[in-house]
Amino acid sequence: MKTLLNILVITFLALTIQVNAADKIPATSHGISYPTGWQNWAAIAVSHRTDNNTLRVILGNDVAVKAARSGNTNPWPDNSIIGKTVWKDTKLKNWEAATAPGKFVHAEFMFKNSKKYADSYGWGWARWVGMDQKPFEKGMRICISCHTPVKDRDWVFTDPAELP
Amino acid sequence: MKTLLNILVITFLALTIQVNAADKIPATSHGISYPTGWQNWAAIAVSHRTDNNTLRVILGNDVAVKAARSGNTNPWPDNSIIGKTVWKDTKLKNWEAATAPGKFVHAEFMFKNSKKYADSYGWGWARWVGMDQKPFEKGMRICISCHTPVKDRDWVFTDPAELP
Repeated sequence: MKTLLNILVITFLALTIQVNAADKIPATSHGISYPTGWQNWAAIAVSHRTDNNTLRVILGNDVAVKAARSGNTNPWPDNSIIGKTVWKDTKLKNWEAATAPGKFVHAEFMFKNSKKYADSYGWGWARWVGMDQKPFEKGMRICISCHTPVKDRDWVFTDPAELP
Repeated sequence: MKTLLNILVITFLALTIQVNAADKIPATSHGISYPTGWQNWAAIAVSHRTDNNTLRVILGNDVAVKAARSGNTNPWPDNSIIGKTVWKDTKLKNWEAATAPGKFVHAEFMFKNSKKYADSYGWGWARWVGMDQKPFEKGMRICISCHTPVKDRDWVFTDPAELP
């Protein structure tokens, strides 16, 4: 009886931990799993858009960073993930002529897999919106449409920034 | 005799490797050792300065990133290193209203150690200039002078960017 109780308690605890962990990982966007840990990926570049007043850092997973550092980006290798973190810009406190990140807008990602995503030009396109990382589900065609000017650059706007 | 020759060859090779490795690490700036590997540190924020047309990503070592993520930044904990990578801005190809990194200018760093750097407000200030990472040796006072407006924020301009 004691053994059975122990098993029940352990099962309950295990389920609770699983549920809590699942709670914290946002749902898929366009069927693509959330790339946990992207906040600590290395930076490939930054950008400032004056048409919608946003500041961005462009990040990469290990495969993408290696490709960026070695100039191997047209095409980007399979398993590259490129992430773009977007904030509304705001005036930097204590330095009037500087713009810095204000409100977080969204994080968006391109997942390279030339076979799996053959129907969307070799990339899986996903976005998670706001601080609660709500999955964007309006379809990859919206992303692709905006990226069409760079179809000859493997659909990527970013040039990896020069680094020593 | 053969053993002696082997020892000499191995010693020569070991010395050669050491010299080559030393060749690649830039010399100290203000007596501070070069923080190798900073190119892959996580981003804390970005900024765009319109007074000198530069784009920046603000990076941190593990201690600084942990402090930034948990809001533990006034003061920043000892052993934090905050890095700022600076590029001249340039128009992003294929998106007219966007600015992206052009020529690399320099990488500058603040090393927190409240005892070691007590004479410079708890921070060691260093900079390496250009793609050849030439050490800046004009003195910490130049850095400190520019940072004086933020002396009540532990001498740091950057607010860690909001992240989910």
